[in-house]
Amino acid sequence: MDLSKFFSAKNIAIIGVSKDPKKVGHIIFRNLIDSNFEGNLFLVNPFADIILNKKVYHSLLNIKENIELAVIALPAKKVPQVIKECGKKKIQNIIIISSGFKEMGNIKLEDEVKNLLEKYKIKCIGVNSLGIFDAYTKLDTLFLPRYRLKRPKPGNISFVSQSGALGLAILDLATSENYGIAKFISYGNATNIDESDILEFLLQDNNTKVICMYIEGVKDGRKFLEIAKKVSKVKPIIVIKGGITEKGKEAALSHTGALAGEAEVYYAAFKQANIIQANSLQEVFNFARILEKSMLTKGDRVQVITNGGGYGVLSIDSIIKNNLSLASLNKKTIEKLKKQLTNLVVISNPIDLSGDATTERYKIAIDACLDDNNVDILLLIVLYQSPLIDTSILDIITEAKDLKKKPIIVVSTGGEFTDTLKRSLEDNGVVNFTFPEDAVKAIKALTEYYLKR
Amino acid sequence: MDLSKFFSAKNIAIIGVSKDPKKVGHIIFRNLIDSNFEGNLFLVNPFADIILNKKVYHSLLNIKENIELAVIALPAKKVPQVIKECGKKKIQNIIIISSGFKEMGNIKLEDEVKNLLEKYKIKCIGVNSLGIFDAYTKLDTLFLPRYRLKRPKPGNISFVSQSGALGLAILDLATSENYGIAKFISYGNATNIDESDILEFLLQDNNTKVICMYIEGVKDGRKFLEIAKKVSKVKPIIVIKGGITEKGKEAALSHTGALAGEAEVYYAAFKQANIIQANSLQEVFNFARILEKSMLTKGDRVQVITNGGGYGVLSIDSIIKNNLSLASLNKKTIEKLKKQLTNLVVISNPIDLSGDATTERYKIAIDACLDDNNVDILLLIVLYQSPLIDTSILDIITEAKDLKKKPIIVVSTGGEFTDTLKRSLEDNGVVNFTFPEDAVKAIKALTEYYLKR
Repeated sequence: MDLSKFFSAKNIAIIGVSKDPKKVGHIIFRNLIDSNFEGNLFLVNPFADIILNKKVYHSLLNIKENIELAVIALPAKKVPQVIKECGKKKIQNIIIISSGFKEMGNIKLEDEVKNLLEKYKIKCIGVNSLGIFDAYTKLDTLFLPRYRLKRPKPGNISFVSQSGALGLAILDLATSENYGIAKFISYGNATNIDESDILEFLLQDNNTKVICMYIEGVKDGRKFLEIAKKVSKVKPIIVIKGGITEKGKEAALSHTGALAGEAEVYYAAFKQANIIQANSLQEVFNFARILEKSMLTKGDRVQVITNGGGYGVLSIDSIIKNNLSLASLNKKTIEKLKKQLTNLVVISNPIDLSGDATTERYKIAIDACLDDNNVDILLLIVLYQSPLIDTSILDIITEAKDLKKKPIIVVSTGGEFTDTLKRSLEDNGVVNFTFPEDAVKAIKALTEYYLKR
Repeated sequence: MDLSKFFSAKNIAIIGVSKDPKKVGHIIFRNLIDSNFEGNLFLVNPFADIILNKKVYHSLLNIKENIELAVIALPAKKVPQVIKECGKKKIQNIIIISSGFKEMGNIKLEDEVKNLLEKYKIKCIGVNSLGIFDAYTKLDTLFLPRYRLKRPKPGNISFVSQSGALGLAILDLATSENYGIAKFISYGNATNIDESDILEFLLQDNNTKVICMYIEGVKDGRKFLEIAKKVSKVKPIIVIKGGITEKGKEAALSHTGALAGEAEVYYAAFKQANIIQANSLQEVFNFARILEKSMLTKGDRVQVITNGGGYGVLSIDSIIKNNLSLASLNKKTIEKLKKQLTNLVVISNPIDLSGDATTERYKIAIDACLDDNNVDILLLIVLYQSPLIDTSILDIITEAKDLKKKPIIVVSTGGEFTDTLKRSLEDNGVVNFTFPEDAVKAIKALTEYYLKR
């Protein structure tokens, strides 16, 4: 389903804008001003003439211009009438922020909305949506103040959430952790457009490279499976499923009214559609980070290089626990490294460059491993606390990544100094993790996805 | 074993101080100056007279004052001779930073050191130690520059590590995450003092409330088990074990020369000694945080309160997956809450205060749950993105924690605004987590420890 107009709309009507700065419609208007959105806003409220120096229309039908997107922030019972007006004005895309429908037991009202949308052939995100956000076009209908919820920089991860509050909290954290986001969509009750429609749209969206989803239940299992299969051939889909236990399912039912279904059925479907399943929100973050860099891999043989022995040991334990393969270096590589490195270095898996490892030692080991046919992926541990590691290591890693065409995942743990170097690597497109166990789980997700695709 | 002199020493000799600012001895000296350590430093180097304006002794034996602690940073082969001099000078505590012993195959040299230490009845941390650190006395023999490795504030977590580099990376991260630390000990090859001796000492250390350990292998299993049993009755011990897979064991062997042993044997011993086993470095952090607040709990029945429905669902899933119990509120509590809260609120487990939850709504729910006999632990999700949550929530949570004597664990996900409020709660002794899954795993560790103790 083509939803591009939702994000590229230039003429937007906000229906239900209040003078009260705490009300939803007002905050949406305010945010669109603050976001430097380059379009035209049309405010609608029968009881106001001017808000924040902007003309207010008493009715949608009084607007002469063509409206590409209407955002509805009115009490639930007023929604059907407004949809009729949208229909008359030939508005094709609307977002309904209003809640108080099926999720509150008002099934009849939601059915009325659903039927009207079909009658007028209107595409609708919601009801009970927390809004959408596009980091490129700056289209922003999230009704949360920007001082509480910072907006992310443009990037390639899109996030689709059945739970609005969860989605926004994640978006907020992603922003502070410097993730780049393409689109954010809170689809609420999926009255008219469901998670499968959104998936299908994101396949076509050029800015989206990775799709993350929080779902409790899907509307139409067969449709979802069919579309997900198609999408995952091109773009990785990471899903975290709420309601995988009986008690969790009950909670989901009283949350979004979703029938969370049998966890096993979902897991089987995810597997069949090559959907990457995250078992925690942290994993969603970790998996998105590694997959955003879209490092194709041809195998799962991991070589570890470290300047901290304990990190080497924990990494190997993790690789085995996650059913990945340990790379075994070619004899030639080992001989070469033995010649080039001091006998303090343990050349095996891990290669332990030892606490007194220099940047030069790293360069030798990195190049040799990446040139070795027995290595598919490099897990590179760099503890920057050592004064022997100078900042040229950043260039060495970045160059290796660009030239050698194999995934390099860096693990570094530390404070301010370490964070500065990590950020610099991230800016050059290198994936970093704080802990070896997280890095290995992410590598597992990466290899599973690509080896199946 | 009483190791208190290592941390309270006022007269410290540094043996092997070089003029070269990049050399270990020099960095240790420099760091002790920078750390505002309030003791007297005696430098020893036969080939220097003055370093950084400080007199240098040509021999340890030339020092007239009584020396309480000697730090040795000389090449390995010179160590035996210096130990003899320490013996003559009746120095009882030494730290040997020097490496090049057993871990490099030089078993004979290490045995010589071991025998000399016994002969002179000297207590020794090392050989191959990365040093020790005390956040209270400022005693700091870590030879890493402070611009790369910030030192933590005083607190109640002590960290003991068989792997030096790993320990320091963790210390660095803990500092940047505002953890308070009591003592840090890198015990290297455990030539004379082993992990069990250190555990026994930390039992007596008033500043230490929680002990975290990274171990690959213990020197004496029976001794460790016996001491750990005694210690864990008073203070929680969190252990992450390196070398739990066959390949990981091999890596451990070439790292610290430790025989990592059968993982199952270790797990059984940990269980018997009520040691909390962490499966990742992240878990060490998470478990230490919750246990530092030493919130006694009498049961494992968890009640969830949330303003984000999806977070409620994921929390319930996690509680079930971790074999914790879901609290079932008393009928009276439910009736009371139904009267006091709007019918938008779902009163069950979770209590979903809904996206428009106010601070007042939280206060009602928190108090009712903590007063309910069916609730042992409160998992409180607060998504601060909502403008209806004002900062008085911080007082409400802090007061509830102080008055109600039940553990409250807060989960909040977000960016700058959220972090500010989280930090404020932490400063008031409230435990915070970013993700519900991490919070629940930490609650599991907490309840297992206290219910067994």
